Amino acid sequence: MTPLSPVDQLFLWLEKRQQPMHVGGLYLFSFPEEVGSKYVTELADELRAYQCPEAPFNKKLVRRFGQYFWQEDNHFDLEHHFRHEALPKPGRIRELLALMSAEHSNLMDRERPLWEAHLIEGVRGKRFALYMKAHHSLIDGMSAMNMITRALSENPDKRGIPPVWAMPPKPVTRKSMPGASDLFSNLSTLITGAGKQLSTIPTVAREISKSIQQAKNDPDYVSVFQAPQSILNQPITGSRRFAAQSYPMPRIKALSKKFNATINDIVLAICGSALRDYLISQHALPEVPLIAMVPVSIREDDSEGGNQIAMILANLGTHIADPYNRLETIKQSVQTAKQRFKQMTQEEILNYTALTMAPTGLNMLTGLAPKLRAFNVVISNVPGPQQPLYWNGARLDGIYPLSIPVDNIALNITLVSYTNQLEFGLTACRRTLPSMQRLLDYIENGIRELEVAADMT
Amino acid sequence: MTPLSPVDQLFLWLEKRQQPMHVGGLYLFSFPEEVGSKYVTELADELRAYQCPEAPFNKKLVRRFGQYFWQEDNHFDLEHHFRHEALPKPGRIRELLALMSAEHSNLMDRERPLWEAHLIEGVRGKRFALYMKAHHSLIDGMSAMNMITRALSENPDKRGIPPVWAMPPKPVTRKSMPGASDLFSNLSTLITGAGKQLSTIPTVAREISKSIQQAKNDPDYVSVFQAPQSILNQPITGSRRFAAQSYPMPRIKALSKKFNATINDIVLAICGSALRDYLISQHALPEVPLIAMVPVSIREDDSEGGNQIAMILANLGTHIADPYNRLETIKQSVQTAKQRFKQMTQEEILNYTALTMAPTGLNMLTGLAPKLRAFNVVISNVPGPQQPLYWNGARLDGIYPLSIPVDNIALNITLVSYTNQLEFGLTACRRTLPSMQRLLDYIENGIRELEVAADMT
Repeated sequence: MTPLSPVDQLFLWLEKRQQPMHVGGLYLFSFPEEVGSKYVTELADELRAYQCPEAPFNKKLVRRFGQYFWQEDNHFDLEHHFRHEALPKPGRIRELLALMSAEHSNLMDRERPLWEAHLIEGVRGKRFALYMKAHHSLIDGMSAMNMITRALSENPDKRGIPPVWAMPPKPVTRKSMPGASDLFSNLSTLITGAGKQLSTIPTVAREISKSIQQAKNDPDYVSVFQAPQSILNQPITGSRRFAAQSYPMPRIKALSKKFNATINDIVLAICGSALRDYLISQHALPEVPLIAMVPVSIREDDSEGGNQIAMILANLGTHIADPYNRLETIKQSVQTAKQRFKQMTQEEILNYTALTMAPTGLNMLTGLAPKLRAFNVVISNVPGPQQPLYWNGARLDGIYPLSIPVDNIALNITLVSYTNQLEFGLTACRRTLPSMQRLLDYIENGIRELEVAADMT
Repeated sequence: MTPLSPVDQLFLWLEKRQQPMHVGGLYLFSFPEEVGSKYVTELADELRAYQCPEAPFNKKLVRRFGQYFWQEDNHFDLEHHFRHEALPKPGRIRELLALMSAEHSNLMDRERPLWEAHLIEGVRGKRFALYMKAHHSLIDGMSAMNMITRALSENPDKRGIPPVWAMPPKPVTRKSMPGASDLFSNLSTLITGAGKQLSTIPTVAREISKSIQQAKNDPDYVSVFQAPQSILNQPITGSRRFAAQSYPMPRIKALSKKFNATINDIVLAICGSALRDYLISQHALPEVPLIAMVPVSIREDDSEGGNQIAMILANLGTHIADPYNRLETIKQSVQTAKQRFKQMTQEEILNYTALTMAPTGLNMLTGLAPKLRAFNVVISNVPGPQQPLYWNGARLDGIYPLSIPVDNIALNITLVSYTNQLEFGLTACRRTLPSMQRLLDYIENGIRELEVAADMT
């Protein structure tokens, strides 16, 4: 019996019917060339043979003395975890997303290991899908992604790869790289850790004061606690809408080069444009810009020991109609945030982030309506595998992340780069944000708008 | 804004993740003759046109001053309620039941009208299915059944029948016949009503005392509070197993005639046999007989104003190996219970039932481990339509009820008679009762066993 970390317990305490705390990944595959029409049925039968899960897929929760522990499930029932499903005809991505919206809305059964794998047949064009779902207390989004890609191969001829739940565990599978973990882990670690390293307070206080001062002089500069109220920031209900699409990375890279901006800047500009269009369509565009919380890499060279991730607040320029000006505002806001972090030590960065994010983070995690709102939306760009991957000969065509909307942060945008694609996964409360799937069209418009501004069409 | 009745509020209070309080019905249809392979897709499109739900399908919960009220949902989103799904190949009943098990495990979203309609394509043999799910606070099982059969026609040529959520409501749709309502409504009404009509207490006390006295003299006589502990009577988890099958009514009727027993006696004997076999397979057969709670009709003529339903406790004879002796024990136990009721006035029946059922009912409804257990399992035989019904030309082949297991009553058996079939729907906690689907085979064995005893094979 292993006790859960306080952070992982938090995900259980925060969970309610209208706020499930699980993450998911939708993996779209093409049939291997040699197979027949019964391929997915046979695959399902093969997968059912893996009845013995490896850690952490064999761990269920037990509660003792008011605390949660992990314990091996001695009545493991694969049929509960592994589900073979099908799309109704015509089996378009539209039907797949409708199924995902419904499945991602369902609370998991806490009396079993907190994961599910759904193998989905009937996807048009000789394809099938795998939807992996896991509670955030068991595994975070990034670790899940790493685990699944580990269960795939770059070799299209490799066979006999077991499913992810039957893969022998790596020595350290969970949260081995704290910086590279996902938003919720970061937030919770920050909140839990806030106030522990008080020695850096003077520097941090000076930076926060500088940030507020700067905001007074420059209207486009994002200080802390100036995110507007918007329809994205309301209590949520229990039903989700999931929307996902791939966009060609070469288009994004060309824009990045043309505008001398990072890929991440372009992504934020596209999201800013799409959110602006969506809010206009809902008659709900705030006068001041939406603020996104964005995990970014601070160090640009690898010399100082790998990635250094911080969470910055980016002005999305949603109040600006002109796409070029909007991009410039975003670039400037990201640049300033990064500069600020560059002048700080790692400890200072942690404390700065903790102190500025904690109030909103706490609100986000507790569902209290915030008085001080640091951000409106979460936009997280996760690097994925650059080489095409295969699962027993089936080519992985796309990876789409499903994340966690919470009270007052009703939309989560997570992106994954895979081969030459940029994959958007949008997870939202479907009542708070009606017709949210239109954002996909607005994202395409956001890309075109920049291409027009750059005379690239 | 209409307040919920105390009974209906109870279903909300009792609900927890591992104990969802919704009922369901699985309706299996054959394609009309003239249609092509896109029939279900076209049907789904037609159904999506009915965007305006009628009462009670337009009512959502609101909570004010600690009480629940019904209010019209002004943001009704049909896509949340109506779902088009598909079975994976080969689309057997096995795949359909697996889907039902998963869907019936899912908690509903309380911030929307508490119903869902799942149209399921890909059932082998030119068939499709409809799974209707509704929270017990919105509608009880019997009313749901009546409502759906009202949305069907005996005329195979009739077209243009709207789906059930768009049918104009009858003046009184809910619980208009208190006696004919389902188990949970009866139980809750009893508990709520217990102690209100105290004038009949002397008669009731005498009958209870008689019943206990009789038990001392006759070991097969079922007194109150003598149900044994069994594996059926444990806390449950949140995941369900649903098993369902049709059996030919002529076989049941032939047995009823041969053994001079009611259809209900034969049903109980079959269930007793199946439960005995199942408990033996689980090394868990109690030495004393299981007790079933069974709603029965008391008056045998219609002269005294329609059906008179009471809930009796039936000895299932699970301790007896011989099928004939088991049936005789069951017959005797049902007969005695009915006789007792015949000597009582309607008020006395109500109070007797309330006083004997209330402790177990309360335990059942609150999940407390009972000290006094009145019954082990619920077996409810519901009369269904006798004529074949059609939905816009699609023939209804079968109706299978999905009910509510609760803590300490992990299995619910509900039967529906339809045309010349007897349809069993078994809903159970899949962890508490492993491989529960084997009961279907044991039911078939139970029928054969009696046929052998009657020299009918």
